[in-house]
Formats: sequence, structure tokens, C-alpha cells
Amino acid sequence: MPMFIETCTAPTNIAVIKYWGKDEARGLNTPINSSASVTLDQDDLCAMTSIAASSDFVADRLWLNGKEEDTAGNGTHAKRLRKCLAEMRGLARDRVDASGAVVCTATELASYKVHVVSRNTFPTAAGLASSAAGYACLVHTLAKLYNVEEAYEGQLSTIARQGSGSACRSLYGGFVKWVKGRKPDATDSMAVCVADQAHWPELRAVILVINAGKKETPSTEGMQTSVETSPLLAFRAESVVEPRLAAMEAAYRARDFEAFGKLTMQDSNQFHATCLDTYPPIFYLNDVSRQAIRLCHAFNEHKGRILAAYTFDAGPNAVIYCEAKDRDELLAFMLHFFPPPRSGVESYTNKPALLKAAAAMPLEPALLAKGNELRTPAAGDVKMIYCTAVGDGPRTLGADEALLDAATGFPLEQKLQKWQQTLGPAGGGGGCPVAPTVSTYAAVAVAAIGFLLVLKKSN
Amino acid sequence: MPMFIETCTAPTNIAVIKYWGKDEARGLNTPINSSASVTLDQDDLCAMTSIAASSDFVADRLWLNGKEEDTAGNGTHAKRLRKCLAEMRGLARDRVDASGAVVCTATELASYKVHVVSRNTFPTAAGLASSAAGYACLVHTLAKLYNVEEAYEGQLSTIARQGSGSACRSLYGGFVKWVKGRKPDATDSMAVCVADQAHWPELRAVILVINAGKKETPSTEGMQTSVETSPLLAFRAESVVEPRLAAMEAAYRARDFEAFGKLTMQDSNQFHATCLDTYPPIFYLNDVSRQAIRLCHAFNEHKGRILAAYTFDAGPNAVIYCEAKDRDELLAFMLHFFPPPRSGVESYTNKPALLKAAAAMPLEPALLAKGNELRTPAAGDVKMIYCTAVGDGPRTLGADEALLDAATGFPLEQKLQKWQQTLGPAGGGGGCPVAPTVSTYAAVAVAAIGFLLVLKKSN
Repeated sequence: MPMFIETCTAPTNIAVIKYWGKDEARGLNTPINSSASVTLDQDDLCAMTSIAASSDFVADRLWLNGKEEDTAGNGTHAKRLRKCLAEMRGLARDRVDASGAVVCTATELASYKVHVVSRNTFPTAAGLASSAAGYACLVHTLAKLYNVEEAYEGQLSTIARQGSGSACRSLYGGFVKWVKGRKPDATDSMAVCVADQAHWPELRAVILVINAGKKETPSTEGMQTSVETSPLLAFRAESVVEPRLAAMEAAYRARDFEAFGKLTMQDSNQFHATCLDTYPPIFYLNDVSRQAIRLCHAFNEHKGRILAAYTFDAGPNAVIYCEAKDRDELLAFMLHFFPPPRSGVESYTNKPALLKAAAAMPLEPALLAKGNELRTPAAGDVKMIYCTAVGDGPRTLGADEALLDAATGFPLEQKLQKWQQTLGPAGGGGGCPVAPTVSTYAAVAVAAIGFLLVLKKSN
Repeated sequence: MPMFIETCTAPTNIAVIKYWGKDEARGLNTPINSSASVTLDQDDLCAMTSIAASSDFVADRLWLNGKEEDTAGNGTHAKRLRKCLAEMRGLARDRVDASGAVVCTATELASYKVHVVSRNTFPTAAGLASSAAGYACLVHTLAKLYNVEEAYEGQLSTIARQGSGSACRSLYGGFVKWVKGRKPDATDSMAVCVADQAHWPELRAVILVINAGKKETPSTEGMQTSVETSPLLAFRAESVVEPRLAAMEAAYRARDFEAFGKLTMQDSNQFHATCLDTYPPIFYLNDVSRQAIRLCHAFNEHKGRILAAYTFDAGPNAVIYCEAKDRDELLAFMLHFFPPPRSGVESYTNKPALLKAAAAMPLEPALLAKGNELRTPAAGDVKMIYCTAVGDGPRTLGADEALLDAATGFPLEQKLQKWQQTLGPAGGGGGCPVAPTVSTYAAVAVAAIGFLLVLKKSN
């Protein structure tokens, strides 16, 4: 029985020019405006997927952290999953060995059922664009499995986009633009790498995972309501985004943090403004999010320039971009106002050493005074602080990393069990591959029962 | 020594189509868009002012709740106060007695210095458009004192507007529109009564006075920043407000609460959206405000129609409009989730009997269940619940109501002392004339030292 296995990881991405709203007229999960994002380092946050194809498999099956999920159902995401599979099978080419000899024809390959095992290496609860990483990883792994070569640049991203809009931006590293496109068939609505991760290696991100209160509006549902009811969103998509995106692209190319940071904060605020203009209004920011925002502005005012730039997706978590030279002081400032729990920093971050150093850093009295006007330091409002940086695109791993047994083609139980065990209450400490949790697909599969409410994905 | 004294009260107003942003090009405190408001019953909330003019007075003087304030300073509001005085003196006409005989010529009258005593009959801390009521009351009382007749309809509102923009809307009862106007001299930027209080007498308002956290951006400063930085505000002023205002006017004329309520909520949310789109962003709503918003939508969803409509000015307080037939159930619902303090309802409202009745009202289990998904009932988030209704315009009171001694022209000490004593921690229980507090002018006079930060006026 021939069996082929591929294993890959894919990064998350956090938009700096937000995507909010599908273009129902064109369909195919195209956006009402172009968007742009920074790809985050998958050493800190990533989705990991192994896919096996074999003539012996009787069905396409999916395991998420040891739990098998339905792939045949009518849930939006089960359907999207099947759509991605079908599209990729259509692009299959012969698999060849090192010598170039065909080991399996495209036709055979496409006829084989697949076993998919996937997980995120960060807490789903963190809601850090896990579906973007998940779908990007799925498409990239299938591309390896089926030996796919893009017929045109961005072809894969048009497929990933149909899984989860922002997933297409996770197919590249660095600064990635998702072009809205114009063609009726939407084949031109794709992600484009504007500058790879090597262009601005000093770019860092400090992520405050903020405790959400009551359940939030799922982004898929939320953006549809916004498109239907917000006059401000229509105006934003038509008139604000394009010039802003051009300015953002120029700022990134020039590594001009002042311009990049201001545009990032303005666009995040405008996105949340359109949510508020939606009827009924949608709220993703809470009082803690607002304190993080004010603290960022206080930090910048104190410094006399923009050194820290927050952005929020469809949830209360703050992603704060900065440059390496300013990261530690920013971290010390935020850590002072959002201190770790009594149990210490170990379970509070993916970089305990960094946080310990930051905690020991003295803060300028004037800066501290500014902060004290905005918040009284208290633990509990922030669940975790992630430290990461701009990163590269999807990676192909070796056979030894596979999550599937090369002999049976079934999930490697001991690995799955390990993931389960390492699942902490907060979803674990994050960081590859220490603390996996319910992956994207789990979220995806149970979206119908509202699991996605904690995902705060999209954008 | 001839002395003339007039005493009047003026109501507050709460905008349903919001005013946010001055037209700096035209100046004279004209708005970038027209707005509309409902005047609230001054039996519940009002400003009260006595003004005496006498040849014996040596200076224009101002007393606020027994405390004399500077009127000669360079503070924005001291200047505005003087401007209103100067303009009104310019409109003075001879004072005549019952027989029509002139008792004082316009020239003499205008040459006399004045003594002004003013107070609000509701807690300034409540931040319920107290400056609107205050300036409207000042202008109306001066009009009586100087026997002013408008040369054109709305002339007085163009003067009140220069004290505080929204003050012009407090010069009339019922549904009042502040027309932006077009003339360069801004004499056409005035308030117009669209429908008086008798048109829709069933209209009620339940006001949740919500505890503010950290200090907020004063509205005068906030709206200027918004005009300078928010692309969404410019679009709103240019393209959204006019058609929305026309629809609102039609809804009010037709007493169509469904349409009136939806537009009211949408416009409140859009105003706060433009605050969020401001750079740096301005936040007036807090998590409790948001819970009040969600509870309103839950109430309406449960009823299958819009029976309650919230609106928020430049602060966290919720003003919820409804009709008389739905008021008690709405009150019971809100009271359940925002219960009074242990001390009871007496100091929690201006209508203890109403709240006691509401507290005893059984809530539909399904409605209760909806609410429980949104908030866990707890005291403290709401300071007070006011119950009021649509009301009439400024009133002229009799000599016996005067706050000034007819013999000396100085404040009546015992009355002033009484106001001081009745000043509760929350600013007293509200309601004419039981619980006065620091009035508008106090706020106005000390704006420079940030007192206005708790006023949440404007709109």
C-alpha cells in the first residue's frame, strides 16, 4: 500500500489594515476592501499539520488534538474544508522521487483519501488568528502532498482564502497584502508578499491576551451584519482603505515606525468604530483593552514619538507592535500595569526570561506617573503576555516531525496524548511545540455550537 | 434705586441626532451638522436662575450655590458668559408696567450691572446636559429682564448657542432641531421647535447615571480633535446626518417609536464610533454602558419590536427613551440588573414610588433569561436612575421664587445655605427644587481647572 505523508507548520498574521466584510456580490470569500498584515514568528505561534494520503484509506478523516472531527457535515467550515481539499486535488501533479521518477501519478494521488492531523501550538483561547494559520497550513501541506505548483502567483492563496479569508495572508512571511481584486471569478483576490521577514527584522510584537467577559459576536456573523447596516463601513471600504494601504505599504518599505505605528492604531480604531456603527452594535474592545490603548498612547507621549502601536482584531486582545530597541521598556511598562499572577511568569508568557528581565527594569518616574493616571496595577485582567516578532511563511518539516504513523497512517497516540496533557487551564503556556490546544479545525468543526465565540479570529 | 428682578427655569435636552464638531470656518459656535433633541421635563431636571439689574450695582456678579464666581476672567466660559450678557443688553427694550407706561428705558436698563444667581436642580455629577440648561436659562432670564422681543425667530437661540452649542435646543419644549444654517454671519444657525411637548406626551426617559471610571475628554476639546482627525466624522456630517434627521423628524411627527427608537440608537452609536475613529481615540462608553445597550436590545428582541431606545452623550450615562405604556416594565428590567444600594431607592432616584412599584413587578422568565446572559445583577455600577418625560421650554417664575433679595439685590442666604446642605455625596437626589448642586456656571467658571471633566455635557 503506497502512502505519502507531509508535515508543515504555518504562522499566524495580525492585520494592520483590517479586513472586515465580504463582498457578497462577487462571493468566493472576497473582501470589500484590501487589507495588509504582518506575519508573526511561527517559532512562537503556529499551526502544525500532517496529512497522509493512501489507497488504503476509506474516508477523508480529521483529528484535532486527538479528537476526531466530522468532515462530512454541513457546517460552514466542514464545507470549506472539503472545498479546499477538492480544489487542491484538482491541482495534483505526479509525485516524483529524487531521481525524478514518478512514484505516484496525479490521478492516483487525487483519488486517495487523506488523514489530516492538526493542532495549534498556542492557546486557541488566545484567539490569535488561529483559523488563518490553520487553513494556511492545510493548503500548504496539501500543496506538498500533491506536488502542486502554482499556475499563477497567488493561486494557492485564492484557495486558502476560501477556507478563511485572512488565511491567505499566512502563506507568506513579512508584510503581506491581500489584494481585493477585480475579476468576477475572484482569481485575482490573493495575498501578495510586499516585503519578506528579512526586510524589517527589528519588528516585534507584544501580545496582551485579555480576559473576555461575556461571549462576543463571531467575526463571520459580525462582518456580515456590519456590511448590511453600517454606513461608515461602506465609506471606509470605498474611500479610506486604499490610500491608507498605500501609505502603510510605503511606511513598511521605509521601515518608518512612526508612520507604520500611527496608521496601525488609526486603522484598528476605525475597524472597531465600524463595529460600533453596526446595528445592533458590536463590541470587541472592553475596558481593559481601552486601558491598554491609553497606556500605549501614554508611552508614546512620554517618549515624544510613536514607539508602540496597538491593534485589535475581533476580540479584546492587544497586539502591540514595536521595534527591538524599545521592546523591553514597553514590556516593563505593560508588565507593571498588568502584572503576572502570584504563581509567577512561567505560565504567564512564552518568554519567561524576557518578562523576568523586564520586571526588574526600572521605569522612568514620569512615565510611571502617566500610567498611574490610567490604570491601577492589578493581576487577572491579562491572562498571558506573548512576545514574538515578524516571521517567515509556512515551513515543510521532516518525516520525524510527522503527527501520523508512517506505518498505519493514523495519529501517533502518544503525541496526541502529550498534547492533551500539556493543555493548561489557560490553554497552556504557548510556544512550539510545548502547549498545543484545540486547533483551528476543532474550532472550525464546532463553530456551529458556538465554539468560535472564543476564537476572535479574522481581520 | 430702581431694581428689576426676573427668575426663570430652563430644561435640559438630550440629542437623538448628535451634535459633535464645530465649524471652525464659520466660527460663532456653529456645528458641522444639524442635530435634534428631545427636551426633558424641568419638573425633574432644570436650571434655575434669578437675575437682578440695578443702578446701585457696581459690577456684574455671579453666585453659584452660594459661592461667588469670577466673571471677569479669561476662561472660555467666563468670556462666553460676558458675550451673552453683551448681546442681550444690545437687544434691551424699555420696561413697561401693566398700563404700558415706561418704568425704565432700554438705555438705562442696559447700563445697569447685574447680579446673577443660578443653580441646577439635579446633580452636576449626573452630567445631564447641565450647561445646555444653564445657558438657556441665562438667556431666557435676560430676555425677560431686558424685555427682549426676537427681531427674527430663533434670534435668542443664536445667542444661547454661543454660550453652549446645545443650549439653543433648551429654549423650546418637545422635539427641537438645531439647524446648522448657511449664512456667513451664522444668524441662521438656530434651534427650531419641530413639535412641542403636547405632540407626543407619552414619551418617557429612564436615565441610568453610570459611574465613570477615569476622567474623560471634555466634549469641547474632544469634538475639536474629532473634527481634525476622524475621516468618519467628516463623512457622517456631510452624508449621513441630513437624511437621518429628516427620517427622525418624520418619525417624531408620526409618533412612530419603532423608527424614532432605531434612529436614536443608530445615531448614538455612530457618534461614539466617530469618537473611536478620532486620534488618539476618545472613549465615553464603558463596560457598564455597553451592558445597558445590550440589555436594551435584549428587551426589544424579547418584545419583537423596539420599545426602548438608548442614547449616550459625551459620557457613560444611558438615557433610554420609551413610551408611557412600556416604561414600568423597562424600569423593572433595568432595576433588576442595576439594583439600588442597600440604603434603598430613596437616594437612588427622583421617583422612589415608581422604582418601588417597578421592583415589585414580576419579569417574564424568558426576558430575565436573556438579560442574565448579558449581566449579573449587582449594585454600584449605576449611581442613580432618573425617571422623566418630554417637557416644555423655559418658564418664568413669580417674584416669590426669586433667589435674590428684592430689597438688597443680593442672594438670599438662607436659600443658598439650604442648597449647600441638601448637597448629597452623589450630588443629592435630584428633582426640583430638592437637591440642587454645583450649577452649570460653577462648572463653566472652573472649566479651566478641569471640573468640566465630570460634566459630560454637549451633544
